[in-house]
Amino acid sequence: MQTEIERLTQGDAATDSTVLVDRLARAGRAAQRKLALMTDAAKATALKLAAASVRDAAPAILIANAKDVAAAHDSGLSAAMIDRLTLDSGRVEAAASAIEAVADLPDPVGQTIDRADRPNGLVFERVRVPIGLIGIIYESRPNVTADAAALCVRAGNAVLLRGGSEAVHSNRAIHAAMIQGLVRGGVPAEAVQLIPTQDRAAVGAMLAAAGLIDMIVPRGGKSLVARVQADARVPVLAHLDGICHTYVHQSADPEKARRIAYNAKMRRTGICGAMETLLIDANFPAAPELLGDLLDGGCSVRGDARAQAIDPRVDPASAEDWDTEYLAPVLSVGIVDGLEQALDHIARHSSNHTDAIVAEDEAVAEEFLAKVDSAIVMANASSQFADGGEFGLGAEIGIATGRLHARGPVALEGLTTYKWLVRGSGQVRP
Amino acid sequence: MQTEIERLTQGDAATDSTVLVDRLARAGRAAQRKLALMTDAAKATALKLAAASVRDAAPAILIANAKDVAAAHDSGLSAAMIDRLTLDSGRVEAAASAIEAVADLPDPVGQTIDRADRPNGLVFERVRVPIGLIGIIYESRPNVTADAAALCVRAGNAVLLRGGSEAVHSNRAIHAAMIQGLVRGGVPAEAVQLIPTQDRAAVGAMLAAAGLIDMIVPRGGKSLVARVQADARVPVLAHLDGICHTYVHQSADPEKARRIAYNAKMRRTGICGAMETLLIDANFPAAPELLGDLLDGGCSVRGDARAQAIDPRVDPASAEDWDTEYLAPVLSVGIVDGLEQALDHIARHSSNHTDAIVAEDEAVAEEFLAKVDSAIVMANASSQFADGGEFGLGAEIGIATGRLHARGPVALEGLTTYKWLVRGSGQVRP
Repeated sequence: MQTEIERLTQGDAATDSTVLVDRLARAGRAAQRKLALMTDAAKATALKLAAASVRDAAPAILIANAKDVAAAHDSGLSAAMIDRLTLDSGRVEAAASAIEAVADLPDPVGQTIDRADRPNGLVFERVRVPIGLIGIIYESRPNVTADAAALCVRAGNAVLLRGGSEAVHSNRAIHAAMIQGLVRGGVPAEAVQLIPTQDRAAVGAMLAAAGLIDMIVPRGGKSLVARVQADARVPVLAHLDGICHTYVHQSADPEKARRIAYNAKMRRTGICGAMETLLIDANFPAAPELLGDLLDGGCSVRGDARAQAIDPRVDPASAEDWDTEYLAPVLSVGIVDGLEQALDHIARHSSNHTDAIVAEDEAVAEEFLAKVDSAIVMANASSQFADGGEFGLGAEIGIATGRLHARGPVALEGLTTYKWLVRGSGQVRP
Repeated sequence: MQTEIERLTQGDAATDSTVLVDRLARAGRAAQRKLALMTDAAKATALKLAAASVRDAAPAILIANAKDVAAAHDSGLSAAMIDRLTLDSGRVEAAASAIEAVADLPDPVGQTIDRADRPNGLVFERVRVPIGLIGIIYESRPNVTADAAALCVRAGNAVLLRGGSEAVHSNRAIHAAMIQGLVRGGVPAEAVQLIPTQDRAAVGAMLAAAGLIDMIVPRGGKSLVARVQADARVPVLAHLDGICHTYVHQSADPEKARRIAYNAKMRRTGICGAMETLLIDANFPAAPELLGDLLDGGCSVRGDARAQAIDPRVDPASAEDWDTEYLAPVLSVGIVDGLEQALDHIARHSSNHTDAIVAEDEAVAEEFLAKVDSAIVMANASSQFADGGEFGLGAEIGIATGRLHARGPVALEGLTTYKWLVRGSGQVRP
């Protein structure tokens, strides 16, 4: 039996991205209606079969990946991009295990959010249902093919995947393996579709497909996310920047502050939850040690005049530094006179991803938690905890800084919506 | 002290709608940050002062309204529009009471959605926060000025109101009265702003203000909603059509079915929850009485061949009838062979607002509730219950058929989002 993709790639229609995306999206929506009715157990079993199929296909996946890596070397891709692209048996095993972990997560579909019994005998219940068709637009990491598809399917959604052209063979091999297992488990093949063309117009067609694609999740660098956010007519779940602040209040425990600040910046500098700006209270006594740790650890520090006065190794910060996500061992440091100044700085410069305070004074910490309007606000912890796994969500499709639908780390619940069920016994409205 | 609106309308900037909306939106966002920090009690008190102020201003509001009504007569507005526009002392009192009712609703801001204590001692809590700045675009009903503003403020949101030009004097009078009370209660005046120009370009500027206006709620006829949905770059909370179905299963109790169908169509034919299509099981024995009630009650019925065979007064339905929201005593009727056919018809023709089944067979009713993918799905009740008040929500800003953020009747909770609070004691990420 031909799949929709096979039919399309044989015909002329495949040359027209809008027609292609339209037809794939309609096929995906039809498949989703069947997927939505599968039980929790059936979806979990199908995902486990998909994981097994990916594991079995490891040799084929690695051969396909070797083609992509060779082409990447030829076209002069950066070492960092080639690293993200390259698979080995460990990374394929990680992809298979990630699918299994998603299969083991509780299914949000069918959960009751709330319920009201009205005096007229009507019973109102809100239950979680899948969103529908999710579009994933991603770059070089082939594992996203498995991760993102598994999360979407777990919550009963169909998915339309558009991977980077540099990973085309890897993505196709992983996708083919997943589909084999999913179909064996009763999931319609069109529930997980990989856009078969590398034509960049296909991305534009996805972004324009309002009413056909219910939500788009971009996974990749800032330029990808910026393009998606600027052009999409479909709702987008994403964050553009992670300009995360840590404010060390004068009441902070010096040891905790040093440990937290160092970890928030230096544990991994390239992740969205990494601290980019450190605000230190002018009355915090251990500022020299705090900055010394970071400088000694190889972090380049750019500060205002008062920060420069603390350690001669601190360079002057420019105006742009306060709005820069370095994703590198670079940090901007400002000295502030108390909570109000810190809140004001954060309100003006935060990207509303994750902002943190270190303070022993609980009233001050609670005021910070209440007043900072970011998706994640932390007290006395490293901003590097901004991760769905650390939040106990089991996984994440992404971190969102928008204000609607879902904020912060988004996992299965964020891939659902709800409907209202009303049960009566013949009631009519007076 | 001048308000932002006063400053703007004195300068040249007011001539440029984009500049105007940009400046009002920024002023609204700044006011919202203060409003967000007001306590539940303070917001409730301010709204009660606003209600009292509207009540006190009734004479001025009625004089302003008389100007609008006179102009509407001169420009030949329809009787229905003039009715929606016209205020009397009862309608002004209703506006004041509606504000008081909203003040008495529980404040969702600060509510904990869920909480997780992790093994490393970190405590994750999700709490409701206001969305930010809401845009309301509405037509002739001046009471929307009071209703919508009260709901937004109750949940800590600032609001930018754009009423219809036919109601300009009424809206200004109601807005001025509300602001007087709100300001006395400590709400910044810029938290509730009425666009001071009737230039239609201001609507376009609001729809384009992504990042400045967080959500737009259109309140009015289908052409208004269609324009807003087509052009908005800002997320829109709305429904376009209410093509609501009632399916009478063969197991339906004949008396209940007749009562429910008649009420669903005829109680008020002009509301979005009114039934537009009735699907009757071929084996339901009381179809003649069901159709007879409606025909006798003055409803014009358009049916398929089998429906026409039931009663000679049934006219033939065209293909478009199944996709038409009549908002009038007109009904399309189809005869179906069982649940599957009914589900299939609904999947193809429903606008996903409200669909209902009448059935005594509980398994069939539950299958219908599970499989129909609409914002509201009902069993054994009139679709005219599709209303936030009937759902126990106390009020509604609108009914949404989109899939993200909020669906069905949307009240205060739908005017909030959430943030994650993370409380630690020095944790760093390994």
